[in-house]
Amino acid sequence: MSDLLTKATAAKEARTALASSTTDEKNDALERIAVQLAVDETSILEANSLDLEEGQRQGMSESLQDRLRLTSDRLKEMSSALRELKQLADPIGEEMTTWKRPNGLSIQQVRVPIGVIGMVYEARPNVTIDASSLCLKTGNAVLLRGSSTAIHSNRALVKSIQTALKASALPEGAVQLLEDTSRETAAKMFKLNSHLDVLIPRGSAALIQAVLEQSTVPVLETGAGNCHVFIDSSAQKDMAIAIAVNAKTQRPSVCNAAETLLVHKDWSANYLKALLDDLTANGVEIRGDASIVSFYEEAIPAEEDDWATEYNDLIVTVKMVSDVQEAIAHINTYGTTHSEAIVSETTEHVTSFFQEVDAAALYHNASTRFTDGFEFGFGAEIGISTQKLHARGPMGLLALTSSKYLIEGTGQIKG
Amino acid sequence: MSDLLTKATAAKEARTALASSTTDEKNDALERIAVQLAVDETSILEANSLDLEEGQRQGMSESLQDRLRLTSDRLKEMSSALRELKQLADPIGEEMTTWKRPNGLSIQQVRVPIGVIGMVYEARPNVTIDASSLCLKTGNAVLLRGSSTAIHSNRALVKSIQTALKASALPEGAVQLLEDTSRETAAKMFKLNSHLDVLIPRGSAALIQAVLEQSTVPVLETGAGNCHVFIDSSAQKDMAIAIAVNAKTQRPSVCNAAETLLVHKDWSANYLKALLDDLTANGVEIRGDASIVSFYEEAIPAEEDDWATEYNDLIVTVKMVSDVQEAIAHINTYGTTHSEAIVSETTEHVTSFFQEVDAAALYHNASTRFTDGFEFGFGAEIGISTQKLHARGPMGLLALTSSKYLIEGTGQIKG
Repeated sequence: MSDLLTKATAAKEARTALASSTTDEKNDALERIAVQLAVDETSILEANSLDLEEGQRQGMSESLQDRLRLTSDRLKEMSSALRELKQLADPIGEEMTTWKRPNGLSIQQVRVPIGVIGMVYEARPNVTIDASSLCLKTGNAVLLRGSSTAIHSNRALVKSIQTALKASALPEGAVQLLEDTSRETAAKMFKLNSHLDVLIPRGSAALIQAVLEQSTVPVLETGAGNCHVFIDSSAQKDMAIAIAVNAKTQRPSVCNAAETLLVHKDWSANYLKALLDDLTANGVEIRGDASIVSFYEEAIPAEEDDWATEYNDLIVTVKMVSDVQEAIAHINTYGTTHSEAIVSETTEHVTSFFQEVDAAALYHNASTRFTDGFEFGFGAEIGISTQKLHARGPMGLLALTSSKYLIEGTGQIKG
Repeated sequence: MSDLLTKATAAKEARTALASSTTDEKNDALERIAVQLAVDETSILEANSLDLEEGQRQGMSESLQDRLRLTSDRLKEMSSALRELKQLADPIGEEMTTWKRPNGLSIQQVRVPIGVIGMVYEARPNVTIDASSLCLKTGNAVLLRGSSTAIHSNRALVKSIQTALKASALPEGAVQLLEDTSRETAAKMFKLNSHLDVLIPRGSAALIQAVLEQSTVPVLETGAGNCHVFIDSSAQKDMAIAIAVNAKTQRPSVCNAAETLLVHKDWSANYLKALLDDLTANGVEIRGDASIVSFYEEAIPAEEDDWATEYNDLIVTVKMVSDVQEAIAHINTYGTTHSEAIVSETTEHVTSFFQEVDAAALYHNASTRFTDGFEFGFGAEIGISTQKLHARGPMGLLALTSSKYLIEGTGQIKG
């Protein structure tokens, strides 16, 4: 059997025992993994060195090397995260709803694991531990497909996980690593509906697009964020400036950072200069529409493409708008349905914005930067879904669950 | 612009107004469609005749012609279904959950439409009305891609819908029909992520497989049902026989009909003959494992493929098993995670079966035939999902909804 089929079959076989495991058994396994990472520190760091050396030989960029690098501190952070995960409520087994039918059938919907999850990611070995632990906590088996450039690190980490699982009550086969990291095998994995219930790609837009293009297995999509802040005519000056600057600059590389500011013309008449000065002082390059460019010397003209671009950088597009409807129309045209904010003191404008903007998270008088599983209080995050099915917005443990109906009868047959 | 892009854009443009429409406006539109179908009866039936004549010229089978055929009575049934749909609760706008974060942010999750739904189906014009009305009730725009063999019927039905919408408060563009029914255009539609939020294929396994293979748009999959009835050693004789015969014979062509019976050897010792005689008397062909074939003259040997086959016909495979664990293992190997039943008086066996069998609906002492949106009391059915994401089992109106988070702040920024 191929590496893919061997590993996928092992994961699938672990699924039934995993689904029946208790919360205590799952938490015990997480604790054992946390301990094992410390026990195996030397061999994990040695394996990681092999990947880093190979990366340097291949001319891997400094930032990619940093993502690939494991250290004693980073291993300790992984163990801490595992122990925090233990504290979270176990969603599996929850009785979601129960009702009785006129024919006497009693129908109960209960929360269950999804089954077998295929995780596809790049050269970030921390995802190996993160994804495995979230899957185990929710009773799911996982087939990991990491990057070839992290294969030694991933192999060492999965060895620690499997050592810990062997000593636990959970099936050892619950976490599987694909050793064959070829594109051909990945393409087969994406179509392995017989073994995998869902694929979760984590990484660049190109990776996610490749999985979407090739897969027949359902995909839990986490996507791009072209987020906007709309400053209404009634917005408080200081609040609006603080939110816009925070959304743009607090961490420009992430998906919930703002890329475009939409500024009401009346507010602009008084405060636009203060806003643009503050952005400029924070090192932000301003690309504006005609009104902005003519008003502000440092601004350069925005091209059509700019409005649709997720810069992930200290660049912002600024557009002057006449009313909330123009702002909504712009967002629904160029946005990626991720996170959108309105700063306003006018209730009916907020209502329209909340009603009509199509996005996972809508903010009134707050920064878009709060779209995050931890900021939402979920205690864990699988990613931020920009699709409409299954889960939308920040995904916590519930996103890794499904349900089944249990029906109790007394001999009912269909007439 | 191509027919596909024109129609998809029109649907997308209708989405915002639709999402904001009230329950009364949506119900009024459904009533107007019900009325319009009666007004347009002559032209609809004429259009349908064109499709039927063409079908006959092409040698279309009688059963396909029957699915394609519209009659005055069938149009009246469509109008009745539209009026029943009016009575159902509108799920849109429901406040699903609200909580407050330590930083003062108030987060509310509300139920919203999915957006634009692509419906892909075969030569059954009733799906045109059924799918459109379910989408409208849930505030979704819909792009219909029916079969070329039903194009005149679909065009007439959509004309009636659009006439009704024009007189209603809903946007007229909410329901769009692809006139171009080529495979090339379908392939483009399946990848139109910029306009479509979800694809729902309704029809044969081949159709569903084609959509899954080609799509990058998320698919709401409704699948095959290879369902089992396990008769435990403690099962009551009459109840077990009644459930097995009902699950197999009451309507063998549907996905929730049973295809395999797993019979405990101790129960078999007393009652197997009565069961097999009853099935035979109901015209069922019996294919058995070695024990069954040696016991029952009329039984023919089952091949390996039989255990994985959804016959949709009066054929059943029968296997003798030693215990509930063997039954569970068989179902988890050959089943399609649709509907599975245990007939038993032994509580711990029922518990194991409910816990360990991986399926959308599990029955204790009832027929598998109840897996159905109407039998579950949903009042409507989009289909029966056999996937784990978004919706599992019978899908009612909720399956056509998503959610968004509305976050109220007082100037919060991320530190």
